[in-house]
Amino acid sequence: MPVEPSALSQAIPVDKIRYNEQGLVSAIAQDYLDGTVLMMAWMNRESLQKTLETGETWYWSRSRGELWHKGATSGHIQKIRSIRYDCDSDALLISVEQVGDIACHTGERSCFHQVDGEKVPPPADTLSELFATISDRRDNPTETSYTCKLFAGGDNKILKKIGEEAAEVVMACKDDDKEAIAGEVADLFYHTLVALAHHQVDLRDVYRKLQERRQ
Amino acid sequence: MPVEPSALSQAIPVDKIRYNEQGLVSAIAQDYLDGTVLMMAWMNRESLQKTLETGETWYWSRSRGELWHKGATSGHIQKIRSIRYDCDSDALLISVEQVGDIACHTGERSCFHQVDGEKVPPPADTLSELFATISDRRDNPTETSYTCKLFAGGDNKILKKIGEEAAEVVMACKDDDKEAIAGEVADLFYHTLVALAHHQVDLRDVYRKLQERRQ
Repeated sequence: MPVEPSALSQAIPVDKIRYNEQGLVSAIAQDYLDGTVLMMAWMNRESLQKTLETGETWYWSRSRGELWHKGATSGHIQKIRSIRYDCDSDALLISVEQVGDIACHTGERSCFHQVDGEKVPPPADTLSELFATISDRRDNPTETSYTCKLFAGGDNKILKKIGEEAAEVVMACKDDDKEAIAGEVADLFYHTLVALAHHQVDLRDVYRKLQERRQ
Repeated sequence: MPVEPSALSQAIPVDKIRYNEQGLVSAIAQDYLDGTVLMMAWMNRESLQKTLETGETWYWSRSRGELWHKGATSGHIQKIRSIRYDCDSDALLISVEQVGDIACHTGERSCFHQVDGEKVPPPADTLSELFATISDRRDNPTETSYTCKLFAGGDNKILKKIGEEAAEVVMACKDDDKEAIAGEVADLFYHTLVALAHHQVDLRDVYRKLQERRQ
C-alpha cells in the first residue's frame, strides 16, 4: 500500500536536502517489486514538497522550466512506497508503484531500455532477470535448451521436477550442507519459475502477493 | 562474470553522452544480484573512458576536483556487469559486483541507508526484502510471529511446510488456477526463505548460483 503523504513529509526534511547551483537535486525512481531503476529526473524544493504532500512524484523539467506531475497527461503516475536521501543529502531514492508499468516517455517500462540502439530489459533482481529469460525461451523455443524441453514436456514434466527439487532442498537441509542448500534452492526456484511461465503467471504477481502480506 | 572492458567500450559511445554545463553525467551504481541502488555519483568524459577501459568504476569527485577510482584505497572496487544510458543520454546506469559489499564511505552497503537518522536497509527486490525481515525475526524473536514459530519448530516443522507448499503449487498448476498458482508459489518461496535463514545460508548465495548458470 502506498504510504500516507503525512508520513512522507516527516521522513524527508526538505530543508536538509543539498540542492545544487540550479536549486535541483537528482531523484532516482525505482520499482518497488523488483528493484528496476525506472528513471532519473530532477526535483527542486517546490517539486519535492509537492511530492511529499501528494504521495506521487512531481519533478522539475529543466527543458521546459516547469513543475511536472509525472503521469498527469499519460496517466502513468508514480505512487510512492518509500523515499530516502543519501549520505551527503544530494540525491533522492524513491521506491514507487509505477501505474501502467511504463515510466519512459517512449512507452518503455524504464528509461534505461537500450544498449547502443538495441532494446534490452533494464537490470532487475536475479530471479526477475531469470524469469524474463525463461519467458523468452517459452516464446522463442530452441531445440537444445533444457528450459524448452521442460516446456515441451508440459505440466507433468515440470511439476515432477518441483517435487524432486523440493525433496532435494529437504535433504540438503537435513545434512546442513550450506553449499548444497544454496544449489538446491536455486534449482527449486528455477523450476518454479518455469511452472509460472508455463501457466502465464507473472513473477510480479507472486511478488505482489508477498508484498500484500507484509502490510 | 564481469564483462570484458573491450565489450564495454563498444556498448557506450562516450561522444553520444550529453554532459551537463560542468561536463558531468550522473551515474547510478546498482547491485547486480538484488537491484539495490548502492550510490549515485558523477562521471566526466575522462572518468567514463577509464571506466570503460578498466571494467571498474571511475568517478569524478566534485568536492576534490579529481578523478576517483572507486575502492582504490578501501579495496571496495566495483566490477562492472553492464552499463547503459537513458533515453535522453544524460544518465548512466551501471550494474556492478560490489567488492566487500560496501559502497558507502560510511561503511554501509548503500549510500541510501537512512531515513531521517534511523538506519534502514535500502530498497531491493521483494524476495530480498522479505528475507531481511525473516532473518531479523530469527535474530529478534517475538512470541506471536508465525515466522518465529517456524524457527522454534526447527527443520522438521519448516521442511514439512516446504513439502506441503510444493504439493500445493503442483495442485494449483494442475487446476490451471492462476490466482492460486501465484499464492502457492508465494507460500513456497516464503517457507524456502525460512529454511535458508534457519541454516544461515544467504539468499544472495542462491542468486549467485543462478547467475553463474546464466553465463
